[in-house]
Amino acid sequence: MIGYRFMGKAHSNAWRQAPRFFPLKAHVEMHTLCGRNAAGVQAARAQLGWQHASTNWREVVEDPLIDIVDINTPNDSHAEIAIAAARNGKHVLCEKPLALTVPQAEQMLAAVQKARVVHMVCHNYRRIPAIAQAKKMIQEGALGQVYHFRARYAQDWPADPQFPLVWRLQKEVSGSGAHGDINAHILDLGRYLVGEFTAVTGLLHTFITERPLPEAPGKEQGLGGKAAARLGKVTVDDASLFIGRFANGALANLEATRMALGRKNHIEIEINGSKGSLYFDFEDMNRLKFFSNDDPKDRQGFHDILVTKGGVHPYCAQWWPEGHLIGYEHTFIHTIVDFVNACVDGKPVQPTFEDGVQNQRVLAAVEKSAATGKWVQVKTA
Amino acid sequence: MIGYRFMGKAHSNAWRQAPRFFPLKAHVEMHTLCGRNAAGVQAARAQLGWQHASTNWREVVEDPLIDIVDINTPNDSHAEIAIAAARNGKHVLCEKPLALTVPQAEQMLAAVQKARVVHMVCHNYRRIPAIAQAKKMIQEGALGQVYHFRARYAQDWPADPQFPLVWRLQKEVSGSGAHGDINAHILDLGRYLVGEFTAVTGLLHTFITERPLPEAPGKEQGLGGKAAARLGKVTVDDASLFIGRFANGALANLEATRMALGRKNHIEIEINGSKGSLYFDFEDMNRLKFFSNDDPKDRQGFHDILVTKGGVHPYCAQWWPEGHLIGYEHTFIHTIVDFVNACVDGKPVQPTFEDGVQNQRVLAAVEKSAATGKWVQVKTA
Amino acid sequence: MIGYRFMGKAHSNAWRQAPRFFPLKAHVEMHTLCGRNAAGVQAARAQLGWQHASTNWREVVEDPLIDIVDINTPNDSHAEIAIAAARNGKHVLCEKPLALTVPQAEQMLAAVQKARVVHMVCHNYRRIPAIAQAKKMIQEGALGQVYHFRARYAQDWPADPQFPLVWRLQKEVSGSGAHGDINAHILDLGRYLVGEFTAVTGLLHTFITERPLPEAPGKEQGLGGKAAARLGKVTVDDASLFIGRFANGALANLEATRMALGRKNHIEIEINGSKGSLYFDFEDMNRLKFFSNDDPKDRQGFHDILVTKGGVHPYCAQWWPEGHLIGYEHTFIHTIVDFVNACVDGKPVQPTFEDGVQNQRVLAAVEKSAATGKWVQVKTA
Amino acid sequence: MIGYRFMGKAHSNAWRQAPRFFPLKAHVEMHTLCGRNAAGVQAARAQLGWQHASTNWREVVEDPLIDIVDINTPNDSHAEIAIAAARNGKHVLCEKPLALTVPQAEQMLAAVQKARVVHMVCHNYRRIPAIAQAKKMIQEGALGQVYHFRARYAQDWPADPQFPLVWRLQKEVSGSGAHGDINAHILDLGRYLVGEFTAVTGLLHTFITERPLPEAPGKEQGLGGKAAARLGKVTVDDASLFIGRFANGALANLEATRMALGRKNHIEIEINGSKGSLYFDFEDMNRLKFFSNDDPKDRQGFHDILVTKGGVHPYCAQWWPEGHLIGYEHTFIHTIVDFVNACVDGKPVQPTFEDGVQNQRVLAAVEKSAATGKWVQVKTA
Repeated sequence: MIGYRFMGKAHSNAWRQAPRFFPLKAHVEMHTLCGRNAAGVQAARAQLGWQHASTNWREVVEDPLIDIVDINTPNDSHAEIAIAAARNGKHVLCEKPLALTVPQAEQMLAAVQKARVVHMVCHNYRRIPAIAQAKKMIQEGALGQVYHFRARYAQDWPADPQFPLVWRLQKEVSGSGAHGDINAHILDLGRYLVGEFTAVTGLLHTFITERPLPEAPGKEQGLGGKAAARLGKVTVDDASLFIGRFANGALANLEATRMALGRKNHIEIEINGSKGSLYFDFEDMNRLKFFSNDDPKDRQGFHDILVTKGGVHPYCAQWWPEGHLIGYEHTFIHTIVDFVNACVDGKPVQPTFEDGVQNQRVLAAVEKSAATGKWVQVKTA
Repeated sequence: MIGYRFMGKAHSNAWRQAPRFFPLKAHVEMHTLCGRNAAGVQAARAQLGWQHASTNWREVVEDPLIDIVDINTPNDSHAEIAIAAARNGKHVLCEKPLALTVPQAEQMLAAVQKARVVHMVCHNYRRIPAIAQAKKMIQEGALGQVYHFRARYAQDWPADPQFPLVWRLQKEVSGSGAHGDINAHILDLGRYLVGEFTAVTGLLHTFITERPLPEAPGKEQGLGGKAAARLGKVTVDDASLFIGRFANGALANLEATRMALGRKNHIEIEINGSKGSLYFDFEDMNRLKFFSNDDPKDRQGFHDILVTKGGVHPYCAQWWPEGHLIGYEHTFIHTIVDFVNACVDGKPVQPTFEDGVQNQRVLAAVEKSAATGKWVQVKTA
Repeated sequence: MIGYRFMGKAHSNAWRQAPRFFPLKAHVEMHTLCGRNAAGVQAARAQLGWQHASTNWREVVEDPLIDIVDINTPNDSHAEIAIAAARNGKHVLCEKPLALTVPQAEQMLAAVQKARVVHMVCHNYRRIPAIAQAKKMIQEGALGQVYHFRARYAQDWPADPQFPLVWRLQKEVSGSGAHGDINAHILDLGRYLVGEFTAVTGLLHTFITERPLPEAPGKEQGLGGKAAARLGKVTVDDASLFIGRFANGALANLEATRMALGRKNHIEIEINGSKGSLYFDFEDMNRLKFFSNDDPKDRQGFHDILVTKGGVHPYCAQWWPEGHLIGYEHTFIHTIVDFVNACVDGKPVQPTFEDGVQNQRVLAAVEKSAATGKWVQVKTA
Repeated sequence: MIGYRFMGKAHSNAWRQAPRFFPLKAHVEMHTLCGRNAAGVQAARAQLGWQHASTNWREVVEDPLIDIVDINTPNDSHAEIAIAAARNGKHVLCEKPLALTVPQAEQMLAAVQKARVVHMVCHNYRRIPAIAQAKKMIQEGALGQVYHFRARYAQDWPADPQFPLVWRLQKEVSGSGAHGDINAHILDLGRYLVGEFTAVTGLLHTFITERPLPEAPGKEQGLGGKAAARLGKVTVDDASLFIGRFANGALANLEATRMALGRKNHIEIEINGSKGSLYFDFEDMNRLKFFSNDDPKDRQGFHDILVTKGGVHPYCAQWWPEGHLIGYEHTFIHTIVDFVNACVDGKPVQPTFEDGVQNQRVLAAVEKSAATGKWVQVKTA
């Protein structure tokens, strides 16, 4: 595994927990954890449960003892690592967004296809039981023809103007802001649950354009007073909104923002179809709301489904009795389970790098529409 | 109509509005409003839409032009007025609780039975569309055998210890506190939705035992300071809790309190049966939640029914399109509609004075259990 | 009052109820109800409580005994009636949308300005207590600088493809579909709560393009079978979505649809600012949710405010004790109260015809953007 | 660790995860897993991550390499194991309810006190972050004087009459039904959050008195038809309700049931005090609702607190960013963390065996009141 910060912690937990709760088709060894800072990666290795530590990702992806490379680094290094890993015949799991640009993502896809390795983008939200249940219901026709996909991913962590200029707020490292970081997630869920986007028009906006530099705390102290932090320019968007059309005729409305006070990790999705509707909110991630037009007229209303029933709801048999919730980290465990089993079987596992490329195309189309003020068609493979 | 304060305002509105929205079997004239204070009743007459005003209720209940007497006075005068009205052949609608004691209630019942007039207790909450819908569903067997009836009526209006000692806090006028005022309501809903209580054990409690006298504001001013209000003894309960059993084997848990900060008029009911469950909260009175064990396993969850659909949900055809809410006052309008039509037809209309008597018996049984610390059987007619 | 269908029923109720609950600065007489069908208007007159009935609106607006004209007709006749009423010196209350086009709306505005009469568009949702409370809080700075206005008006009444082709689905009568009918409402709330729109891009879409003609039920019966209803073309949109920018820098996302199963009259609004957020849902219209960044860190969370407290929340002192809900119709009563008092005072009352014109400009800008695929600037007065 | 079924799985996970996420004061080795079935315990050992397996709990509790004994067996063996473990100087963590009877619990307490070992009852719900936060707020005075503690633990897993007669439904193994299994949990939360119970009156009830025997599926096959399962007698309660009083004057209302369809693990708690109220529902375990009378009058309403903020809410710093939920299993991890650190420090850690004894006393008092129909005083230590 390359990278050990927030995602590294979540992925490591998933690697540890997957075999404890799920039947895996292979025994998993957590071989090497890799990061740039020697002391940091060594400490993380012990804490997170890896056997070895390394500061040289090239050595890791070439190690013949390693079958799988899991990439959790900042977005600007995904492509280089993934391509090298594929060339060395490793199966690759990569954090989203796959790349900084569409061409970069296409190169990554070409590399994994050429190497015939299993590839997966870590859109962990697909494996929330409630989302997997929604997918199943849509496939079974519970919604009929889909009319509307409406989603919002709202956070507030940098809402305070004094929040520092971290890497997620710097375009050269992160590629974009709310757009690639979180709109990418609900865009993926739109593709997963409804289908391909064909055209979009949107906007990107930065509300707070300058922030304190994190690397320079206290450097600029005045004579008798408080430090005045040096400010740096925010080069990514705080918010990304777009409306669009799907190939199947449905309408899309997606909004991502980091400036919605009170919304912490609020991924809200509503899908309306000719036979019913679904509603999901990640801040109540164990629930799915379902309206069925087939219910008796006097009893119609959104069913508030607690998606925790073993043997009935996806992934739930391995956890706790009904009504006992699971959390954020479990979405990664489910992802690892499916990925490992696909690696053993040598079969594709969604979301693939094809999904990653297509996701990037929609992101790019929104960016283009934001720049030109016009609708932009989305190329599909 | 006798009495013109809070309930007088609500009832007057109902008398005015009923014929505007519902087909009544007779033309209604709002003949006389009666109250003790001449100026007050005259002003109320004009404001509330009555033709005449009177300060003599005996004259009113004897007036040959009057067919119906609607009693909204404080609880200690219900019996005398209702009995006189019945003796004069008037149909009687009486606010709850019917009386201060069981014998008094029985006398009222005897009077209306002897006079063969139509009689009704104004338990307006029975005619919330969601409650009427619940009744219909239970009758249709949607819950199967009922196991649990759990209800709570919580308010907070006198939670502030400085709230004055109004008539509702004086036993000699009101009979009791939360017990007769609001536990009587959910007790009625229990009898309506589930059946007769057979035994109970409960407690009554007063948290704030002294309060400022309302009649003496500012009288006791000190020399250079603020008025110290004279205090009077609170002679009613702030809270009334009981558990019990129904004749059909269901268990009961009822709680009424005026000391639940944040709960304004929170009438919360849950009923669990062998086939499903219902949940209602008056602070969301246009909704009814229904869990059906017959739903497909992966789609089970409480249906959040917006009970506003004309032609489908009770009383809703006369109001607004689906999704447009109605409010508190509409429960009185529905009550008046059914009462007027029953008067024309000369047929009983629930809740009758029999219901009022039985309600009083349960209230009395709880009081007795609170005094003795033992379970008390409830006599049924 | 001209027109007596759905809106006629709601407005008549408001005219009747306003003086019963609120102190009006003048005595109101409900003089004449006017409609095209003589029998229909006569029946409505009696039912709704008007003194006279007429089938000739020109006579009505010229009647010297009449001071106020309230227009509830289909949208294509608003302009002609309003202009005539203004020329005759009548104060004018007009249902929304003000007109079919911007020029028409501007002519109406010119007419009322020239006549110096009081003019108001009936955007009744402004006078939901929760919305009036939201306005007050925003004015007091509770949200700080506004970043996002996000609104959705979702219904499902014509979701069934067999729902007939009523006037609201015909462009020549209604002007537009969800766009002018319901997006106009949330657009108005955006202008009321946040400010002027400066640019928009959007789309209009019709999912069900043909529907049974209402005037011909059963006419086309086949030989041995069921009637095959004749179909007519739906000429309005089922859904209207747009994103945009406000003059004060906030972003807008508005969506209106009639095809969201389970959403009955779901007007959902969220506003995020630098100090807090507000959320409202009309299907829980007595509530307002408020997140304050000023709350202690460990107690932050959306306050679920029951906006029913007399003396504290707007319009609530005249109704029922706290926690006793009001409904849809009360928004019209509040509108009439403020309009009548403004007529007596001869003062403007929001939303004026200026608001109606500006609303129409935004609607037109969205239509233009939908046609051209480009952002459209919105002219402000 | 003794026992490896449902609780064994949850505890093992907690032992594995605690050091991965929290700073422990000692290194933890998961030495031996013990159970009655050799094959079963061996498989569980591998799956759950223990070093050794044993079928002899006496050997385990005598093993000098072992410092801590964690007891997860059915309730009838808690006492014997715990007392033996204490005599061998082991720190003891024991699942609830501590014992089958008060005297048994008192013996266990005497044993751990004599041995001067650290002892803890696994009431894991105390360490839900939302509950820990509630405790903190109550201690800080956010509620003022407490008036009401109202709790309900509702499940529906055996609601189907065909659900078999498992050990939890047999009194000789489990001691009691909903009463000791789940009412014990909310009773513990009442003691934790409010204080000692002084008197109670309650009832226990069994709705379904016979159920299919689990050991005999299909044994009784009829001639040409389906198997008719042999029935056995249910010897425990399905529901346990009681009302009572706390030493500090607050009123209690507790209800536990396994027969509430749609309620899966619904632990609902409301506490009302003179300054505010708290509400919690375990099916939304990451949330806590708080009403403060100190909020400005027009902004009062339950705060919907997402209790996930690192550095602010208890236990949350070690998990994920705000808004990313945790689940059921985390309550055990927090319990283990605090228990391990207490063992190292040699300090008491709540809930102790004293708490376990007192819990048992209240359970016994309710049972006695159910049997006698009278209020029963609760002895406090």
